[in-house]
Amino acid sequence: ESYGWHVQTVDDVAHGLDDLRKAVTNAQAVTDKPSIIKIRTAIGYGSPSKEGLKSAHGSPLGEDDLAGAKTNYGLDPTKSFFVDTDVQDYFGQVRSKSETKHQEWQELFKKYTAAHPDKAAELNRRFRMELPEGIFDKLPTYKAGVDKDLATRKHSEQCINALAPELPELMGGSADLTPSNLTALKCSGDYQKDTPLGRYLRFGVREHGMTAVCNGIFAYGGYRPFCATFLTFVGYCVGAIRISALSQFGVLFIMTHDSIGLGEDGPTHQPIETLESLRSMPNIHVFRPADGNETAAAYQSALQNPATPTVVCCSRSTVPSLEASTRDKALRGAYTCIECDGTPQVILIATGSEVGPCVEAAKVLSPSIAVRVVSMPCQEVFLEQSVDYQKSVLPGDIPTLSVEASSPHGWHRFSHAQIAMNTFGRSGKGSDVFDFFGFGVDNIVKQAKHMLEFYKDTPVPNLSSFLTLVPPNDPTKH
Amino acid sequence: ESYGWHVQTVDDVAHGLDDLRKAVTNAQAVTDKPSIIKIRTAIGYGSPSKEGLKSAHGSPLGEDDLAGAKTNYGLDPTKSFFVDTDVQDYFGQVRSKSETKHQEWQELFKKYTAAHPDKAAELNRRFRMELPEGIFDKLPTYKAGVDKDLATRKHSEQCINALAPELPELMGGSADLTPSNLTALKCSGDYQKDTPLGRYLRFGVREHGMTAVCNGIFAYGGYRPFCATFLTFVGYCVGAIRISALSQFGVLFIMTHDSIGLGEDGPTHQPIETLESLRSMPNIHVFRPADGNETAAAYQSALQNPATPTVVCCSRSTVPSLEASTRDKALRGAYTCIECDGTPQVILIATGSEVGPCVEAAKVLSPSIAVRVVSMPCQEVFLEQSVDYQKSVLPGDIPTLSVEASSPHGWHRFSHAQIAMNTFGRSGKGSDVFDFFGFGVDNIVKQAKHMLEFYKDTPVPNLSSFLTLVPPNDPTKH
Repeated sequence: ESYGWHVQTVDDVAHGLDDLRKAVTNAQAVTDKPSIIKIRTAIGYGSPSKEGLKSAHGSPLGEDDLAGAKTNYGLDPTKSFFVDTDVQDYFGQVRSKSETKHQEWQELFKKYTAAHPDKAAELNRRFRMELPEGIFDKLPTYKAGVDKDLATRKHSEQCINALAPELPELMGGSADLTPSNLTALKCSGDYQKDTPLGRYLRFGVREHGMTAVCNGIFAYGGYRPFCATFLTFVGYCVGAIRISALSQFGVLFIMTHDSIGLGEDGPTHQPIETLESLRSMPNIHVFRPADGNETAAAYQSALQNPATPTVVCCSRSTVPSLEASTRDKALRGAYTCIECDGTPQVILIATGSEVGPCVEAAKVLSPSIAVRVVSMPCQEVFLEQSVDYQKSVLPGDIPTLSVEASSPHGWHRFSHAQIAMNTFGRSGKGSDVFDFFGFGVDNIVKQAKHMLEFYKDTPVPNLSSFLTLVPPNDPTKH
Repeated sequence: ESYGWHVQTVDDVAHGLDDLRKAVTNAQAVTDKPSIIKIRTAIGYGSPSKEGLKSAHGSPLGEDDLAGAKTNYGLDPTKSFFVDTDVQDYFGQVRSKSETKHQEWQELFKKYTAAHPDKAAELNRRFRMELPEGIFDKLPTYKAGVDKDLATRKHSEQCINALAPELPELMGGSADLTPSNLTALKCSGDYQKDTPLGRYLRFGVREHGMTAVCNGIFAYGGYRPFCATFLTFVGYCVGAIRISALSQFGVLFIMTHDSIGLGEDGPTHQPIETLESLRSMPNIHVFRPADGNETAAAYQSALQNPATPTVVCCSRSTVPSLEASTRDKALRGAYTCIECDGTPQVILIATGSEVGPCVEAAKVLSPSIAVRVVSMPCQEVFLEQSVDYQKSVLPGDIPTLSVEASSPHGWHRFSHAQIAMNTFGRSGKGSDVFDFFGFGVDNIVKQAKHMLEFYKDTPVPNLSSFLTLVPPNDPTKH
């Protein structure tokens, strides 16, 4: 009531539904606020020994109690899975009524389609989760040395605003971090009581509710919801993100301030375990783009996968555009962004804001050391590529150093050594914090040399020789 | 107000604090409910161009605005980091008053110590996070073939109830899942208004609040708080668990129903990514015990590490007691629980409820194949052991199959192939769901043979040859 809801209480639904029907009629009459009806019930109602007890919740009633409950309901206690003819008749009527209503709706929509073929086609397109033709041509393309270097959160802002005018189903907002997440839609105002056509939602500091709302919008159909917060605040909504993944809701998550590089806000705001937490969840794509083209790829991938939620992790700080990046390459999950002559002696893999320093490190190391740099914006998408492609990027038997300002967990699959975060971060200027924890060019160069030295005497374990097992059953086919 | 708080609003604190002082006095007079004072303020108060604007929150004021604000406060705008003498005097008085109060308290406690030496010693012990001597002797010890096989949640119930009578600082509860988590304290009733000595807290379905409350209890000092829910519901409190880890609060988390083995509740309740999510967080110990002795080890480790939160992940279903398990072995994080004659041809590593089936699989495979089985209740603790010990358990160059009913993420560090969960789970009888996803003895045997076959032609990558890098700076020393 203090939230402004219309609240009613119904004390009894066990001895007839008249009170409940009346409450529903009352609720329908209140059109200026949401209604809630509180119904008092007894758990395990009718069970002779468990009514009102918690044991009626967690475990089966048992034979005697079941028989007793049936008797109390006026049913034959000896019959199981029995549906009386009057119940069958009643639901038969419900079915035929519903069929008629469905038929009426189909007729109406046929008439609507005849009268408004464009609108009907658009409605069908949106409910089928199809995209407008050529939509990805709207995404920006960036050229190193030509376009200004930006933070990937700014690339994200450009991508979402390139898509939004052409994609009316894109609707969402931020958890009170719009000026930081840069998710405002220039083509649309706020969704408010007086502006119901607005597509931008002001969720408030309420990550769980925000994600749950997006799940609800997706479940309704016809919309591609997005939402945004700082990456570390995934900790306040991961239960609801899990529901997106489990329910195959292609919600788009724009998570900025994606590492210790965010600087002054310090360890409470600096994600460490978050990337790996999300990557270890089934049916989710976690993108951490290194520049504008990779950010555009993340958006394209998100839209192309309506049954899989996508998390786009963006930097607060400016990143250099990569010479070699293209949207198509990034759509393979990982690709070679600096190649050397001949077989590389060392491979550096990085994601997001750590790709730039690896490119610089490669310049320092070469030509005396042959270095390949791999940008890996999305592990999950990379692992969906052919084994041949995967091996062409990461042969597995060449000393490989991964560089990601995040937990080392999960990287032993791809790299022999990790520059990573083994502790929480610290407060300071972003670039100072990066340097402190070893993500500066100097330390990358030093560790690459150290690794090369180490594997002079030690055989390199071939990471292409992990054995991937096929599960005995395919859960999608049972 | 609808929650029963005493609520006051103060409209102005910028032009004097009399209203606020009055509100504080009012609040102190209300002793039967909590008080909250809502103070209306303007963000960036006094700043000529940013007062009331969001830009006063996220970025510095800038020189002109700073000077303007100082002028508006009656300060000299040309002075920086300047504290006026009257402010210095005032805080000097605060300091000397506080020193006197501290001195008085010390005197009082000295008198108390003289009058009640036992109580004072106990208070000191608890605030120093020291444990009563011999406390771990109270923990149960289990013998395979003698003690009845139980679910590890039942072992956990026995452990917590063995400790609680001797450990008055142990205080906590469950998020409305007491009969499932089995965390009720037999030696203590509920903490309620009329029973403030009760040590058991009924948190309600409120995982985030529960964890935050435990953080608060730990921060106050003198208590070792614990809390409990289903493991998958970590998704609703991981933001607060992160605060435990970051703040070095040794909260004890008892998380039951720790895999698909929980059965009928289905995928919404079956954790997949949760173990790896927690393992990739800094400063946390994640135990997944395989039997009673390992569960006791988890409790001992939790109490011995007051600056590190511990998560004890327990099974819903019964597990067999391991012949070889002891609390001391489990306290090393991983140990050989089945050894073969000579050098093993295959190593099976498992955790929790998957260790039992691996032991059975080893019986089927041997003697024709030499199999070692390793139980790994805690990865973090294992990685703290000497390299020699780690290699004695997991040499790295012997084909190693990990078996954990959880995401494969994180296991490539320890194993060449994984029987793991690559999708969400499903609803069914626990043992059927285990079998369906390949955690039955037959599939473990089959995959172990398959792995052996695979590595006949393929050199085994030596997982002891990963290179661990030393970060350039130690964050604890700066």
